Amino acid sequence: MRDVITIGAGMTRFGKYDGANMPWRNHEQLGREACISALKHAGVNHRDIQAAYFGQTASGMIQIGQRVCDWLGISGIPIYNHENACATSLAAFRQAYIDVASGMHDLVLVAGVEKMSLVKARKKGEGGGGGGGMGLMGGGGGPIVVPEGYMFLADLGIIMPAFFALMGTRHMHDYGTTREQFAQISVKNHRCGAMNPYAQYQKEVTLEQVLNSRMICDPITLLQCTPTGDGAASVILASSKVAKKYTTKMVKVAGSIVMSGEYKAHQGKFASVASCKVAAKMIYEQTGIGPKDLNVVEQHDCFTPHELVTYEDLGICKPGEGGKLVDQGVTALGGKVPFNVSGGLQSKGHPIAATGVAQITELVWQLRGECGKRQVEGARVGLAHNGGGIGPGLEPGLASLTILKV
Amino acid sequence: MRDVITIGAGMTRFGKYDGANMPWRNHEQLGREACISALKHAGVNHRDIQAAYFGQTASGMIQIGQRVCDWLGISGIPIYNHENACATSLAAFRQAYIDVASGMHDLVLVAGVEKMSLVKARKKGEGGGGGGGMGLMGGGGGPIVVPEGYMFLADLGIIMPAFFALMGTRHMHDYGTTREQFAQISVKNHRCGAMNPYAQYQKEVTLEQVLNSRMICDPITLLQCTPTGDGAASVILASSKVAKKYTTKMVKVAGSIVMSGEYKAHQGKFASVASCKVAAKMIYEQTGIGPKDLNVVEQHDCFTPHELVTYEDLGICKPGEGGKLVDQGVTALGGKVPFNVSGGLQSKGHPIAATGVAQITELVWQLRGECGKRQVEGARVGLAHNGGGIGPGLEPGLASLTILKV
Repeated sequence: MRDVITIGAGMTRFGKYDGANMPWRNHEQLGREACISALKHAGVNHRDIQAAYFGQTASGMIQIGQRVCDWLGISGIPIYNHENACATSLAAFRQAYIDVASGMHDLVLVAGVEKMSLVKARKKGEGGGGGGGMGLMGGGGGPIVVPEGYMFLADLGIIMPAFFALMGTRHMHDYGTTREQFAQISVKNHRCGAMNPYAQYQKEVTLEQVLNSRMICDPITLLQCTPTGDGAASVILASSKVAKKYTTKMVKVAGSIVMSGEYKAHQGKFASVASCKVAAKMIYEQTGIGPKDLNVVEQHDCFTPHELVTYEDLGICKPGEGGKLVDQGVTALGGKVPFNVSGGLQSKGHPIAATGVAQITELVWQLRGECGKRQVEGARVGLAHNGGGIGPGLEPGLASLTILKV
Repeated sequence: MRDVITIGAGMTRFGKYDGANMPWRNHEQLGREACISALKHAGVNHRDIQAAYFGQTASGMIQIGQRVCDWLGISGIPIYNHENACATSLAAFRQAYIDVASGMHDLVLVAGVEKMSLVKARKKGEGGGGGGGMGLMGGGGGPIVVPEGYMFLADLGIIMPAFFALMGTRHMHDYGTTREQFAQISVKNHRCGAMNPYAQYQKEVTLEQVLNSRMICDPITLLQCTPTGDGAASVILASSKVAKKYTTKMVKVAGSIVMSGEYKAHQGKFASVASCKVAAKMIYEQTGIGPKDLNVVEQHDCFTPHELVTYEDLGICKPGEGGKLVDQGVTALGGKVPFNVSGGLQSKGHPIAATGVAQITELVWQLRGECGKRQVEGARVGLAHNGGGIGPGLEPGLASLTILKV
C-alpha cells in the first residue's frame, strides 16, 4: 500500500441555513463551497480529480456526490456516496484512502454534506414530504427510516442525550466524576470555537452558564449538547508522488480504522466504548504511534461525557482519570493533548455527514500551522475520532479513527 | 492489485413483502436471508468475514449494514453503506473489490437490501412518517429527498418511464426500430424469469399481451416496465489464495468500472447512453475482453428501450442494429449473447439497491453452471450492466460494469 497525503482541506462555516435566510444554500451549494475551498487550498484543478467519495445521512438526499460534482463541473469519474450515521464522512474518507493507497487513483476528492435544517423544515410541514424518524438526536427526526430496534429504545426514552447521560452518570458512579468536570469540557471547547471562523457558535461560555442552562438529561445541560446544523467539509487526497507537485507540506494519513460495535455484547459498562478501545489498539499498532505521541485530537463530543470517556478509551489516561485530566487542563488549548481546538461538535457544530471530514480538515490545517489563534504550536501528529450509531446493546456502534502526521 | 474471486452468491426471491402478508420480512430479515445464502454457498463461516459493504437507497434505511450484520452475528469489522441510485449495490461491490484487490482484506461480504413496499406503505400513511419524493419510478416515491433538478424534470413529466420512452422513440425515429422489437424484449425476459425461482414474476407473457397491456408512455406499455418490489442479494469476495480454501470454481472479477455521467453535456442523442459507452471502452481495455467474448449479460432493463440501446452501447452490435438483434434472437436464451436470463429487472424484479448485486449473483451461478433450465451452456465470461440516476442533462448518470470470468 502506498503513502496517502492530504494535500488540501476546506469547509463551509457550519450553521443553520434554513428558511428565508439563505434558501440558495442547499445541499449542492454547501457541498460545492466546501469542495472549491479544498481544491483551492490544494491548488488542484477540478478536472484532475479521478474519483470522489461523499457522505450524506440525516437529510436523506440521494446521489449527493453526483449532484455536487455536477455543480463543480466534475463528471466521467467514479463517484460514491456513503452513509454511516454520525461517522458517515469518515467512512467515505477511509474508502478514499484505500483507493489511493491501493494505487487505483492518484488524486481523489472526499466530502461530507448535511442540511439538517431541511429535516426540521420538513417536520414543520414546510417541505414537500418527510416527517418520519424518531427524533433520536433530540429534535432532529426527518425523512430517514428508523429501524425497529431504535424505535423500541426511543419508546424507552433512550434517545441520544439520554444515552450519553447514562454514560456520564455511570462514570460519576464508578469514578466520582463531577457535573463540573463534564461542564468544563463545554467551556473549553466553546473557548476554542470562539476563535474558529468556521464554527456555528463563536462565543465563549462560562462554567456557570453551562451548569445553569436548561437540563436536558442529567448530568447533560443544553450547553453540553451539540446543536443541529448545516454545512459541508472536503479534503483532497493524493499519492505521495502526485502530492509533491502541489505542496511541500506533506500531511500523511498514517492510519485509518473504521470499526463496528459489538452491538449485543454490551455488559452494562457504560463508562467506556468497547469499539473505540479496539479501534485505538488497532490504529496504534498500525501506525506505531501511541497516545503519548498525539499533539492534537478532534473528538466526537456530541455530548460532554463522550469526550471525557474517550480520553480513557484512547489511552490518554487510565480508566477513571478523565475528570482529573479536565481539571489539569491537559486537553485544553495549551495543554499536552488539546482536544477539539476547532470548537468540537459542541461549538463548531455537527451537520452529521460533514463532521468526520471537518475533523480531518481541522487536523490538516493544524498540522500545516494555519489555524491562527487556536493553533496548537508545533503540532505534528493529530488524531480524529468520529463515533456513530447506537445499537440494541446500548453502545455507539461505530468508531472511526484516523491519524495524520507531518 | 491482486486477483479477486467471487466464491459465493445468494439472494432472496424478489417480491412484495408488505402489509399483513409478511411483516417479519423487514430490511434486516431480507438482508440476513440473502447473506446467509451467500455464506452457505461459499461455505464461509460468518465469523471469518473481515469487512462488509452494503447498498441501500430507495427505502431510506440508515445503517443497513450494521443492522443486518448484527442479525448475522457479525461485528467488530468495518461496515460500509453505499447509496448510488439504481446502481447502489454495484458501487458497494466495486468498493469491496478494491478492498480485496488492494490487499486490505481477504474475505469480504457484499449485499444490497431494499424494501420498496415500505415506501409505498408510507405513502398510504400506514407507516410512521415519510411521504416525500416525486414518484420518479412511476409510483415509488417515499421518504427520500428529491433534489431540485429532479423536481423540475418531474414537473415537466420527465419521470423514469417517460425518460426511457423518449429513448425508445428517438431510436424508432433514427433507426426505424419498432414497438414490437421493444415488446419482444419483455417476452424474452419473462420467458427466462419463468424459469427462475428467485424472480418476482415467474410467468411467461406473449407479444400480444405485452403490446396490449396498459400504455404507460409510448412506446412503453405496462409489461415493459420493471415492477417495484422488495429483496436482497449478497456475494462473498475473496483473494485467490483464500478462495482456494473454499472452492475449485474460481469465478474471477476480471474488471469493474463505476462511471458517472456527463450530466450537462447531453446533446440530444437519446438513442445512446454516453457514460455506458465510455465505461464499456474502459472495461474492455482493462480486461482484454471484448463484446464478442461475452457469453452472458445481466443488463439494467428497467424499461425495454434501455436493453436495446445497451446492445449498441456495449458494442454487441452497431448503433441502430439493436432491433435486428432482437429479431434474430441473438440476445435470447440459446442465442449468441443471452441478455437477462435471470428474467432481468422486467421479470426478476428491481428492489433498487439489491439489483446490482443480484446481477452478480446470477452471473456467479451461471459461470458455475448452477442455473438449471435457464443455464447458458458453457458460459465462461459474463458482464453485469447496472445503470442509475438521471441528471439535469436528461441522461442516466451512472453506468457500472463488471466482468466475471472462469
